[in-house]
Order: sequence, then C-alpha cells, then structure tokens
Amino acid sequence: MAWHAPLDEMDFVLHRVLKVQDSDIPGYAELDPGFTAAILGEAGKLAEEVLAPLNAVGDRQGCRLENGQVRVPEGFHAAFDALRDGGWTAIDCDPADGGQGLPYVMHTAVNEPFVSANMALNMYMGLTHGAYSALRLHGSPELKAAYLPKLASCEWTGTMNLTEPQCGTDLGLIRTKAEPAPDESWKVTGTKIFISAGDHDLAENIIHLVLARAPGGGEGTKGLSLFLVPKVIDGARNAVSPGKVEAKMGIHGNATCVMNYDGATGWLVGDLHKGMRAMFTMMNEARLGVAMQGFAVAEAAHQAAVAYAKERLQGHGTRSDGLEPLIVHPDIRRILMDHKAFLQGARALTYWGATLIDRAHRMGDKGADGVVSLLIPVLKGFLTDKGFEVAVSAQQVWGGHGYIEDNGMSQHVRDARIAMIYEGANGVQALDLVGRKLGAEGGKPVMAFFEMVKAEVHAHDDRPEMAEFTAPLKAASKQMQAAAMIFVERGLKDPDDALAGSTDFLHLVGHVCLGLMWVRMARAALEMGGDFGAAKLVIARHYMTRVLPACGLHLARIEAGGRTVMGLKAEAF
Amino acid sequence: MAWHAPLDEMDFVLHRVLKVQDSDIPGYAELDPGFTAAILGEAGKLAEEVLAPLNAVGDRQGCRLENGQVRVPEGFHAAFDALRDGGWTAIDCDPADGGQGLPYVMHTAVNEPFVSANMALNMYMGLTHGAYSALRLHGSPELKAAYLPKLASCEWTGTMNLTEPQCGTDLGLIRTKAEPAPDESWKVTGTKIFISAGDHDLAENIIHLVLARAPGGGEGTKGLSLFLVPKVIDGARNAVSPGKVEAKMGIHGNATCVMNYDGATGWLVGDLHKGMRAMFTMMNEARLGVAMQGFAVAEAAHQAAVAYAKERLQGHGTRSDGLEPLIVHPDIRRILMDHKAFLQGARALTYWGATLIDRAHRMGDKGADGVVSLLIPVLKGFLTDKGFEVAVSAQQVWGGHGYIEDNGMSQHVRDARIAMIYEGANGVQALDLVGRKLGAEGGKPVMAFFEMVKAEVHAHDDRPEMAEFTAPLKAASKQMQAAAMIFVERGLKDPDDALAGSTDFLHLVGHVCLGLMWVRMARAALEMGGDFGAAKLVIARHYMTRVLPACGLHLARIEAGGRTVMGLKAEAF
Repeated sequence: MAWHAPLDEMDFVLHRVLKVQDSDIPGYAELDPGFTAAILGEAGKLAEEVLAPLNAVGDRQGCRLENGQVRVPEGFHAAFDALRDGGWTAIDCDPADGGQGLPYVMHTAVNEPFVSANMALNMYMGLTHGAYSALRLHGSPELKAAYLPKLASCEWTGTMNLTEPQCGTDLGLIRTKAEPAPDESWKVTGTKIFISAGDHDLAENIIHLVLARAPGGGEGTKGLSLFLVPKVIDGARNAVSPGKVEAKMGIHGNATCVMNYDGATGWLVGDLHKGMRAMFTMMNEARLGVAMQGFAVAEAAHQAAVAYAKERLQGHGTRSDGLEPLIVHPDIRRILMDHKAFLQGARALTYWGATLIDRAHRMGDKGADGVVSLLIPVLKGFLTDKGFEVAVSAQQVWGGHGYIEDNGMSQHVRDARIAMIYEGANGVQALDLVGRKLGAEGGKPVMAFFEMVKAEVHAHDDRPEMAEFTAPLKAASKQMQAAAMIFVERGLKDPDDALAGSTDFLHLVGHVCLGLMWVRMARAALEMGGDFGAAKLVIARHYMTRVLPACGLHLARIEAGGRTVMGLKAEAF
Repeated sequence: MAWHAPLDEMDFVLHRVLKVQDSDIPGYAELDPGFTAAILGEAGKLAEEVLAPLNAVGDRQGCRLENGQVRVPEGFHAAFDALRDGGWTAIDCDPADGGQGLPYVMHTAVNEPFVSANMALNMYMGLTHGAYSALRLHGSPELKAAYLPKLASCEWTGTMNLTEPQCGTDLGLIRTKAEPAPDESWKVTGTKIFISAGDHDLAENIIHLVLARAPGGGEGTKGLSLFLVPKVIDGARNAVSPGKVEAKMGIHGNATCVMNYDGATGWLVGDLHKGMRAMFTMMNEARLGVAMQGFAVAEAAHQAAVAYAKERLQGHGTRSDGLEPLIVHPDIRRILMDHKAFLQGARALTYWGATLIDRAHRMGDKGADGVVSLLIPVLKGFLTDKGFEVAVSAQQVWGGHGYIEDNGMSQHVRDARIAMIYEGANGVQALDLVGRKLGAEGGKPVMAFFEMVKAEVHAHDDRPEMAEFTAPLKAASKQMQAAAMIFVERGLKDPDDALAGSTDFLHLVGHVCLGLMWVRMARAALEMGGDFGAAKLVIARHYMTRVLPACGLHLARIEAGGRTVMGLKAEAF
C-alpha cells in the first residue's frame, strides 16, 4: 500500500486555513505547529507502520464466531494494544478519566490517518469513544467512575445498540424491553442487529449502550430509555451474546453482530424514557466521524491511484524506451484532480466542523452549535457520497487490476460504501437537513451560515487576485439561497414537492461548503506562496471552474419539484 | 430475488418505439409482436426459473482451479445445458451453422433477461458468441467448417485473449509470440491475463482467440496476428492451461483466468499481421453487449429496490397499524424514478443500436454503420457508468440490509462494476469518441446524428403536447453541438485541453441519446394511451426536467478545458 499520512495537508488546514493556534477557543493556544506536528507525525507513523499493513489482512480474514466468542483478524490485537499504549484512544478525553484533554479538533486530525490506514480496526476505538461521550454526559456518578477510565483507555470497548430487525431509521418501533430489578439494575431482553464491534476478543469487557423500552414510557421513540449492559460483570458473563457475525460487502475486519439480550443485567443511563436524548446528544460527533471515514478512505484510494498512474507504463511515449506513465493522459489527470479538489476541501470542512464543536462545547457558543448542527447532515451525506465516488474512480485508474481483490482497490470501494448507509442513511441526512435543520430556531443557523459565506466573499474585496475564487462562491451561495426559499415556500404547501429535492439540496449545500473552504484555502495559499501554495491555487481553480457549477444542476432539480417524483402510483413501480 | 423479465417494457421498445415489424431491414418483417412475445416470454421464463436462482450461488461459490482444470459453481452445468438445448446460444447465428438467423436486435433482446438474471453465467455464452462472429468474418473455410457449428451451439465455448501483464489498453506491447510450424499451424507462447471464461468444465473444448506476434510483423499493434488455439485437439490437451483463477470483486461465477501458452498449437485467423482488424471488426457488438450488462444488472437491482421499498414498513403511517412502506417517501421515489428514467431509456438506446447494426450488416448501410460506430463508445461508457450508479442507489434503498451479502444487493453493485472497466475502460471509450469517432469521415457520422435529433424534434412540430419533450432535447442537442465545436477548435491547437473534457463529452452525448429515446417513447406513449402510456409520460417528463439538465454542467466542464486538469506537474501529485 502506497499510502502515507498527508501531514503537510493536515498542517496546512490546521495552521494556515483554520489558524487554530490563534483561536480564542480554550485549549487551542497550545496547538502551535510544533506541538501538533509532533503528535500527528507519531499518529501517521503508527498508521503507516502498524495499522495499514493489517488492512488487507482484516479484509481477507474477517471476523468469526467460535463457541459464542467473536475472533478478530490476526494482528489486530497487537495493533489495538499499540493504539492503547500510545494514548491514542483518549486524545480528547477528560484528564480525570486518564485522557489528554486536548480539543476535539485534535482527536479528529489524529484519527484521519488511522481511518485511512485501517477503517475497520479504527471502528473499535471510534465506537468506544462514542460510548464514552454518551456516558460522560448522561451517566450517574457511579457508572462514570466505574466505566469512563476503562473506556477512555479502550481497556474495555463500547458499542451502540439501536437497530432491530424490524426497524432501522424508525427507532419508534424498537421492541427490546427493560424490566426493573429489585436492586436498581434492569433486565434487558431483545435482539439488536448491525452492532459494530458487537463482540470480539480485543478487550476483556465490552460495554453495550442499548436503547430499550422500559414500562410506562408509552409507544414510539418517547418510550425509550438507554441502558448500559456490560458483557462481563464481576468476572462473570452477562446474559448478552453475539448470535451471528454478518457477512458484509466490506469493513470485514470489524465484527458486525446480531446481539441477543436474554434478561441481561444493565443500568439506566440518563433519565427514564429520555433515552433518545441521551443517545442523540453525541450525534454530531458520531456523524462527523463518519464524514471523516468518507474522505479518509477515499484519500487512501486516491494515493493508490496516483501511485499506479505514475508507475504503470504504456506505449506512444517520448521516453527513450518509448513508454510513458498513465498520468500523462488528460482523462487520468481529470480524475486525480477531481479527487484532490474534493479530498482537500473535505479535510478542511471536517476539521472546521470539529472546531465549531469545540467552540460550542468549550465556550457554550450557541451560534457555533447551531451552524454545526445545520451542517452535520451535509458533512455526513455529502462527504460519504463523494468519498465513495472517489474510491470508485480511483479503482478505475487501475483498470482491470483494480477489480482484482489482491490489489486493494476493491476493498477501498467496499469499505467506503458503508459510510453512506450507517449512522443515518444519506437520504435520512437530507431529510434531517431540509425537514428539521433548515427551519431550526426560525432559520437562525442557516442565516448565520449565509452571513459567514458573505463575510468570506467580501473579506477579499480589496484583493483582485481573489476574485476568481470569491465570485463563483457568491454565485453558488445565491443558488443555495434560492433553493432554501423554495423549501420554505413549498414546504408549507406541499411537503412532498419540497422533499423531492432534499438530496439535491444536501449536495448543493455540500458544494457551497467546499467552495467556502476553497476560498479560505486559496487565501492561505496566496499568503504562503511557494510550490505548495501554487499547487493549491490550481486545485482551488479546478474546484471553482469544474466542480462548483454542479450547484446549478442541483437547483434545477429542486425547482422541478415533486411533480414527476410523486407522479406515479405506488402500484405503477 | 424479486426480479422478473420486463416483457412489457421490451415489447414497448421493439414494437411501439422502434416499430421493428414495419422496418425495411431484411429479416425484420417476421418480427411481429406475437412472434417476439413468444420468444421473449420463453427467454424470460428460463431466466427467471433457471438462471436467476443460480446468481447468488455463483457469487458465493466462485470458480476454483483443481489439478489444472477450472470448476464452475454448482448448477451452472444444468443451466448452461438449458441455454444450449433451447437454442438460445444461436439466435442470430447463420442457419448454415445451426443458428436461427434472426436479426441481431433479437439476440440483444433475448440476452437482456439472461444478463439481469445471471451476468456471470451469461458471459460464457456471450464470449462464445464473440468468438463465433470473429471466426465467421475472418476464418478460413476449413476453420469455419470445423468450429462455427460447435461455437454456435455452445457445445464448445470461446474466449478472447488480448491482455497481458504489461499491457491492457495498449495492445502494441503484446509479447505473446507465434512461430510457424511446418504443417501450416503455429506454435503460440506467452501469458495472457484477465481471460473471461478462460477455463471451465462447462464444455469439452474451449476455443481461444489469441492476439500474438508472428515473425516479420514489426513492433506495435501492426505486428499482431490473430490465432485460434483450442484447449483440446483430436481428443488431446493442447499446450494451453489456466495458471490461476483471479479473486475478483464480482462476477465470481465467471472464471477469469491467467492463461499460459507453452508452444500451443494454433491456426491463423484472417490475414497475417492484420490481427487487430480481425479482432476489432466485432468490437461494436462486443461493446454493445457490455452496454447491455450496464443496464441489465441495474434493472435487477432496481426491481429489488422497488420490492423492498414496497415491503419494508416503518412508523408514522396512515394505515390502521400506523405503519407505511418506504415507498411513500419522496427521496425513495426520487431514486426509483431516476432508475426508471435511465433504465427505460437505456433499453431503447441499446435496442436501437442493435437495429443500426442490423441495418449496417444486412443492408450494407454505411450511414447506419457510421452512426453506430460513433455511438458505441457512448453506449458502453455512459450506460455502464450510470448502470453502476443505479445499482449503488438501489442498494441504498435497502439501508443496512443492502450491505449484507445474503440480500443480493452487494452482488449487483460488485457485478455491475466490471462493465465500466473491461472491453475498453470507460476513459478509453471517451478517448475513442473524441479522438477518433468525432472526426471520422470528416465528421459525417456526427452530422448525421445531429440531423436525426433535429428530425425527431421537428417531426412533432404540429403536436403541442410534444413540446415539453422536444424543447429540452433541442436545447441539449445545441449544447452537444457547442461542445463538439470546442473539440474541433481546441483539439488542433492543444489536444490535452480538449481531452480534459472527453469523459464529460461522452456523458453529454449519452444524455442527448437518452433524450432522443425519451422523445420517441413519449410519442409512442401518447399513441398508446392507457395507464402504461400515462406512466411513460411521467417518466419522460422526469428525464427531461431532472436528468437532461446535466448537459449544461458537462458543457461547462468542457469549456473549462485543461487549464487546471493539466495544471500540476506529475511530481506534484
């Protein structure tokens, strides 16, 4: 695998684009370039040397269920130990729990190379981090004391149990039950499916967070409560077990399990019948993590495509042997430039999103919280849709060799595919954006976003060299505003007419977000100069002239509305 | 698998849109609706009952090499016998060879359900058909007599041997050698890779057509000759053997082999050093076959998505149980309508292409030959790119269940992927379109195509109800003309600048082609009326308002040219 952690790019985003070192967010002052370079350099090294070589191994071997215990692929144990030993599991965890207390943006940056190198392995850590966050926000002091340090260090790992055979998106149909026991514990009974890292032999204990129905909560999602159910209690197995390891298209190295709860002992997390709230307070972080998977796996695929395009020789060339590498061809260049325009924009957007989360959490900034909540479905949906496209076109560069499993390109495509589906399928993200986020707080967050774009456009009014970047962003932003008006106007009259354009709107906003990032990157590149800066300007120009014009097409589709989309009876399908 | 052969749709295209029964092409007169319905009904039945149930089996089991012999999945033998026994292998073969002598359009229509049901199995037959066509056009009378009947019946199967480890697209790098033997046979030595159906146990003999380098031919593609190399000669194994069965992303049921030729006995097909010509005369048919794979696999995926969208229930509904199927959601409808707009247009375009091939072959119509040669890279590239997108979005409808291998959606995606790669990767199709076909015969074919579009637009001038379909086609056609002018003008000055837009041009032309088909289908739907006709008009409207506007985006990208695409040095990637 030719992949290397793109440390220069990560540094550029952190220190030239976002200028984290100059931020007023508490904890950011220490993020000087030397400090972050040291951390990210070590993370990149670990990813390259330890995690990446296991990526294909994990894909080939997958996980297997043996006598009620799931076994992970060879080598995963040592690699997971390396993640624990280096403190990589607890970058942003509370020092009281053994964490390093760094900002969330550093957790995000550190995890990018880990995901690029081995998404399936990284998930064991990522889900544990999610469980840690939920428990930290909603757990009782006793639960927190007992579990947070173990989760922060990944000595024990965590899971999220939402989906059941009869319900995915619609959690109101959950049937898993919880009955109170005399000692303030609960007995949890039911079947959960698609549980990532549901069982494995990487840790002595696994802490399951389970949405279930306790008595008296009524129907639908309002009746749900969240329970903490350990695999092992005081050295004895709890009544929870993996029923099956699913055979999936990709991420074979992560054990996706059917989990059976047979009166398993658990404890309530947060308030009774308020399980949805407890589960969803950490949703922004979880979805930002999936957004990163979208581009991080694509980054690995892109680098492999570049390597192949440089190495693979064919005829008609001007070299002395008459050969030339694939990369001389304009159509190959087009693919690789489209990749760079997306990947670098996606990195900036994701890291920026992480700084907004830091601003919201560390400063209580409600404006930042509103904007990040608005944009999270866009990050999740747009970056995973486009990341998958990058993986597919990177595979295409390899020609027939890309279709052969041994060469690794197929795995990138198969792994990238899941990010469009889990943590809320992308169609649900579009619905969330249009149906909930767009109108939230009377439209305050979306207005704030438009103001941000406007401010960025006008910040460079005195620099004519920025006009080629700001003008297209301004035009795209106007198209987004026109689309937003359509949703406001039609949404009231005929929701289906508006919702027919929800995915197009998600993509339109995604393009505007990347356009905003590319203006910021162009500004930073001009300041920076040199070969690096000059290359950035070419890629910025590529985004503005060849990618951002997609906004017009998305607007046209939104304008077309639901007339044809809803024009057939269900029986006519 | 919920798939059914879409006989109504196939009949609509053949008899309402293309009106094959009224055509002046020799052999078409007998294609009355009753006759074609009888044939296609039987083909559909065989596909549904025999081929489709083996699709998942083939994917799971794959092919394996045992003691120098490749074994295909269980059940493939009986299914292949059923294809032979029904005469399905020789629909359009010469009656002198035991074929039925029907037009190529019937071969095409018959194969659509076979491909939808089981692409991997169908390939054994499809490659044999290719070998039959090459041999029929270029073989000596002796070779033809010895092999054509066996290939027509698929008693023996065929292969195409082009690719080698060091060369895919660039066949000029082929190293496989042929040395003359005293008895007019040749000794072929070399290694070929990615040979579909290279070895298997479905037939007693396999007839390999091999591009190799005979003495005196010089370097590059001009030195290549085509040889027929049987697996078995007079009951004895020839010196050709499978070295490996590749582990691929998909089409596991078809044995993709490394083939080793160790002085294998073969015979020259066609003229010495004219192997490329012999191989490429049948390229239009081969690429049209892959174009069909693009939409036929997508059709199966779409039908599975429709079935799931109708069956899968969730909450918030108005039914008595409070549930409702997924298909009520506008974003699900959007996906399914996009599918229909593509699939039905693709079917019409492919069948129309087949009639153009019939017109060229059966009437010696050079105009038809020019147009089909122009459009073949578009059919191959556009229909396989879009077909893959359909398979991916069909998988998306299934949510998490689409990612589980048991449910079949992953296989559709993995199978569909190869059609973008083999038989000339889609980037090579775009290069063929822009670099060769666009300027062929001084632009005569492309002018003829524009005339066809213009004629279709104006044929309905007196029917105001057609204006909503003809106006967008006219606009898109103008965009295509503008793009074509850019290639003509810039191509001379700076080829790379033009070629940066080649794939966008391929897609632009693809959309214009489907727009043309949708105008023809709208006309037929108006004539037909009823529920079927009414539904068609909705889908036609969907295409015109929500899909065809993509032409503007492709034109914008073409106009942007190669400035950014070629703007970085190779070292900067």
